[in-house]
Amino acid sequence: MMQLNYLMPTRIIMGEQCIFENRSLLAQLGNKALIASGKHSAKANGAYDDVVKALKANGQDCVVYDKVMANPTDICVFEAGIMARSSGCDFVLAIGGGSPMDAAKAAAVLAINDISKEELFGITFTSALPLVAVPTTAGTGSETTQYSVLVDTTEADGVSPKSGGPVKRSFTSPLLFPCYAFLDARYMLRLNRTITVNTALDALSHAIEGMLTLKTNYLSNVLARESINMIMECMDTLLNFPGDPSMFPLEKREKLLLASAVAGMVIAQTGTAAPHSMGYLFTLNWGADHGRANAQLMKSFLSWCREKEQALSNDGSGPRISGLCKALGMELETFFDLVEKLLGEREKASEAELSAWSKLPMKNAAATFIQPSQEEIARIYLESFGFCESGIPDSLG
Amino acid sequence: MMQLNYLMPTRIIMGEQCIFENRSLLAQLGNKALIASGKHSAKANGAYDDVVKALKANGQDCVVYDKVMANPTDICVFEAGIMARSSGCDFVLAIGGGSPMDAAKAAAVLAINDISKEELFGITFTSALPLVAVPTTAGTGSETTQYSVLVDTTEADGVSPKSGGPVKRSFTSPLLFPCYAFLDARYMLRLNRTITVNTALDALSHAIEGMLTLKTNYLSNVLARESINMIMECMDTLLNFPGDPSMFPLEKREKLLLASAVAGMVIAQTGTAAPHSMGYLFTLNWGADHGRANAQLMKSFLSWCREKEQALSNDGSGPRISGLCKALGMELETFFDLVEKLLGEREKASEAELSAWSKLPMKNAAATFIQPSQEEIARIYLESFGFCESGIPDSLG
Repeated sequence: MMQLNYLMPTRIIMGEQCIFENRSLLAQLGNKALIASGKHSAKANGAYDDVVKALKANGQDCVVYDKVMANPTDICVFEAGIMARSSGCDFVLAIGGGSPMDAAKAAAVLAINDISKEELFGITFTSALPLVAVPTTAGTGSETTQYSVLVDTTEADGVSPKSGGPVKRSFTSPLLFPCYAFLDARYMLRLNRTITVNTALDALSHAIEGMLTLKTNYLSNVLARESINMIMECMDTLLNFPGDPSMFPLEKREKLLLASAVAGMVIAQTGTAAPHSMGYLFTLNWGADHGRANAQLMKSFLSWCREKEQALSNDGSGPRISGLCKALGMELETFFDLVEKLLGEREKASEAELSAWSKLPMKNAAATFIQPSQEEIARIYLESFGFCESGIPDSLG
Repeated sequence: MMQLNYLMPTRIIMGEQCIFENRSLLAQLGNKALIASGKHSAKANGAYDDVVKALKANGQDCVVYDKVMANPTDICVFEAGIMARSSGCDFVLAIGGGSPMDAAKAAAVLAINDISKEELFGITFTSALPLVAVPTTAGTGSETTQYSVLVDTTEADGVSPKSGGPVKRSFTSPLLFPCYAFLDARYMLRLNRTITVNTALDALSHAIEGMLTLKTNYLSNVLARESINMIMECMDTLLNFPGDPSMFPLEKREKLLLASAVAGMVIAQTGTAAPHSMGYLFTLNWGADHGRANAQLMKSFLSWCREKEQALSNDGSGPRISGLCKALGMELETFFDLVEKLLGEREKASEAELSAWSKLPMKNAAATFIQPSQEEIARIYLESFGFCESGIPDSLG
């Protein structure tokens, strides 16, 4: 029988000036907001001013925590949580990409729960301050998920290749769905090619991986196909990114922004698959951009999926990959060429390093519809980041 | 710019035995449930036993209000609300088609708010008991909407054609979204042809009308197309309904059940269009089935939409209707033939009656993407329910 478990309780509001026009919704959340953001972009792109204007019009107060870094750490979210608590904030409003949104989610919990740094990733909690998300990039989808992905700096159990080094951990609860996601694509008008392309690839990898997990279901696939479709409609514009970022058509910015939120709705149901776990290590160890790291893994991972799915079926069919190709509107090889053009020169890692990473536990690998073996992960790593030009090196041949 | 306002916070859980398997979710809702249902079907189809089994396993208590009639009245929902209040219920669980679900929604409000019968349809409230929906037909979509459609027996303002008679009114709040919708298609196995077809037509009209409102948006259309697609995949089975209802394939029952919930997600965003308001009068005055009444209006209404949309565009195009045809996978005329086959002989009303109805205020007519004039409504009524064989009678020609 058909199985389904679907939840995405966030109200998504999209449109020019949607924050100010819907400020009455913010008014219901309390007297004081903690605004969580990075150092500069929220102010530069206009989102911060729009939020403050709406709060002021409501007679609401706010404090600002603007120290969220890329790949936010437990240290950062505790700082933000303490600020929310000591200032008596009633809700948390995040402005930015995935990092401020993910940090805000944890801060919303820490503001009203006594949790130590050691407990953070294991604890169950039953309350959080209400959350509002104002995404200013189109990639993370955090505005429509219950996940907060953080860097655990206390980790010293050897999971990370650098002994005692940081690992990415997911902090998850239905309480972390924002009540409101305000999507105003004007905040994206200044995003340069690198950020625009990498975040689009992140959203695309969410939608694609969401079609390839054990939790994939009918509704998540409907949304995944739509998200993929919207991103593919922007592919030409991404490939021919204009010299001046503000010349990237607003209509395409909007499409990418909605596609990212819809891809968030997908992974809210399905989680992600192997590439996300694999990409995290590249991000943590080499500082590689998250969306870009996932995209580098796509060709080898999807080829492996196709091969594996066909081999495991009785009749050589591969419904998941053929469903994906239908959503993409093209064969995998054509798609790989487009991704390759977007990526340009690939980042590389040494064979020794990749081999070490492939031995680490990977939560999302187990969530993939077919679980790759350690050897298969090693091969995907090598094909994606290895120095070999094509195929696999002798050591794995 | 793209505008969007999307909310559907209900967790949809689908699968065989999904209530019992997910009983831990019910356990969190409190000690005692009001079960709202009709007199017989909830017990006959097994849903009632499954619910009681789950509550018992949780150590939860319940009281049963099983007097919900088709097209439930304000009188009925007050009875249920008083029962919930006097029995100290913590949540309300509805089993059935749209009537028990709609009644349960109002009862969940009345259980904890002091509201008089006169105030019911105008009042603002800020609390309701948590709601759980177990649909046992696939049509209403009430399990994924914030609407409770009730018959107002106190109405005596001349809105109804029978002076002082009842009118259908919608009681609406985001608080009325159920927290959980449990979809187990086994409860539909005994549904006969009439109920199966009429409810499928109801769901189909929700999805179709949802594409033709002023509030229609990108996401609502994604869901509407999917719902339409699923129902059209069941069209052959509906047309060739087996002699024994239990021979209607479970797989198609499931598809219809999910399509209905998805169509609910659509109208939760968009509301319905003119046919729903128009059909209500036929239901109230002639006792005609709700889904069937909407379906009888479809041919004339959609033909009018097409004509009007093309006439109002600069280039004679009609994106809404052509989008609908794409979702249907066929031209309107082919679709009309299928609906006609499902309907069989149409119900009729007198010209005088239809003319009187067409003069009544129609909320959903104003919500249609192009608002039909009173004369146009009269024409659609006549074409749909009039005695004339085809076209319009002389009086309107």
